[in-house]
Amino acid sequence: MTKLYVAQGACSFGAHVVAREITQASGLPIEIIKVPLRTPDSPIHKVNPLGRVPTVVTDNGNVITENGAILPWLADLNPDAKLFAPVGTAERAQIQEWIGFLNSDIHGAFRPVNRPNLFHPDEEVQKSIREQGITRLRELVRVVQRKLEGKTWAVGERFTAADAYLGVFLRWLPRANIDLAEFPDLAAYLERYNARESVKAAIAFEAA
Amino acid sequence: MTKLYVAQGACSFGAHVVAREITQASGLPIEIIKVPLRTPDSPIHKVNPLGRVPTVVTDNGNVITENGAILPWLADLNPDAKLFAPVGTAERAQIQEWIGFLNSDIHGAFRPVNRPNLFHPDEEVQKSIREQGITRLRELVRVVQRKLEGKTWAVGERFTAADAYLGVFLRWLPRANIDLAEFPDLAAYLERYNARESVKAAIAFEAA
Repeated sequence: MTKLYVAQGACSFGAHVVAREITQASGLPIEIIKVPLRTPDSPIHKVNPLGRVPTVVTDNGNVITENGAILPWLADLNPDAKLFAPVGTAERAQIQEWIGFLNSDIHGAFRPVNRPNLFHPDEEVQKSIREQGITRLRELVRVVQRKLEGKTWAVGERFTAADAYLGVFLRWLPRANIDLAEFPDLAAYLERYNARESVKAAIAFEAA
Repeated sequence: MTKLYVAQGACSFGAHVVAREITQASGLPIEIIKVPLRTPDSPIHKVNPLGRVPTVVTDNGNVITENGAILPWLADLNPDAKLFAPVGTAERAQIQEWIGFLNSDIHGAFRPVNRPNLFHPDEEVQKSIREQGITRLRELVRVVQRKLEGKTWAVGERFTAADAYLGVFLRWLPRANIDLAEFPDLAAYLERYNARESVKAAIAFEAA
C-alpha cells in the first residue's frame, strides 16, 4: 500500500489533504503515518535521509520526496478525482505553476520569519530579519489575493492539488502575525477550505 | 508557435536547454525570446505581471510561469525526446522531485548570497548574511553530490529536464565563490553538461 509520511502542522498537510481526497473519491487506500520532525530518532530518517515530510513510499518501494513531485503523483493516482488534469493541458500546467509558486516563493518567504537563525547568528539582527521577512510575506499574500480574484478555487473552478497546498500557507499566516482579516477574500477562501471533509479529517488525524 | 522568454544567465537557462533539446530531437519549433530583467520597460512585463523568466506563451495564448511547471510542460511536448517520463512512473516522480529540490532548496539558497539586502537593510549585516548563506549553499551542494554519486545523469542514465535545470545552478556556483574543484564529480558532470549541443547553443544565443 502507498504510504504517506506527515508531521503535525507541517507543509506535508497539502499532500495529506490530497491523499484523503483521493481515498474519499476512489476508496484507493493510502496509509498515512504521522512522524515527529527534528528528532534524531524519528522514523522519517529511515525513509528520507533529509528527514523531511512529506515523503511517499510507493507500493513497490520507491521513495518520493518534495511537494512539487508528491502532490502530482498522489493526484495522478486517481484522475477521476480531478485534483490534477491530463498531460499537455493548460490546466495541468496552471496547477503545477501554483504548486511551484507556493513551494519556492511562499514557503521560502516563511523561512526568515520562522527560522531567522538560518541567516544570522545575532538575536537582535534576527528580530529585524523576521520583521523584514513579514513585510515580504505580506507582499506575496497580496499576489495570491490578486491571482485568486473572482475565483472559488485556484484553477478550473474546482478543488485541486493547488488548493490543497495553498490552504497550508493561509493556515500558517497567524504564525507570522498576519491576520487574514486584512484579506477578506482569502479569509472566505480559507473558510471554504476548512469546511472540506478531507481537511477536517486531516486536522483531526494530525492532532490526535 | 510556442514562445519561451529567457534572460541571459538567469534560472530560465534550464528551460532554454530543454527547449533546444526538444527542437533538436523533433524539429518542433519553439521561439526563444531574450529579454532584459528588472527594467520597467522590459517586454516581459506585458507577458508575466511578476516580470520573471522563464515564461512560456503556448500557441493558443496560455501563459505558463514557474520552472516547476515550464520544465515538465516543455518536456511533455515531445515524449520521444525522453526529457521526462510517462505519468504514473517512478521516473517521472524522480525527475519532478529533482526539479522541486533545485527550485526550492538550491535556488532559494542563492537568495541570501546574491541578494542579502532582501533580508536586512544594513550593509555590514548583509556581508554576514551572505557568508552564512554560502556556508548553507555549500552544504546543499554536498547533498547534490551524494544524490549524483556513481551516476552519469540525475535520473534514469539519460539527460532529462532535471539535468537541464541542475546545470544552471552548478554554473552559478562561482558567483558564490564556491569552486567546483572542491567537488570533482560535479566538475566532471558540468563538463558533460557544457559539452551538449543544446547547452552550447543556449549559451551562444543568450550571449549574443
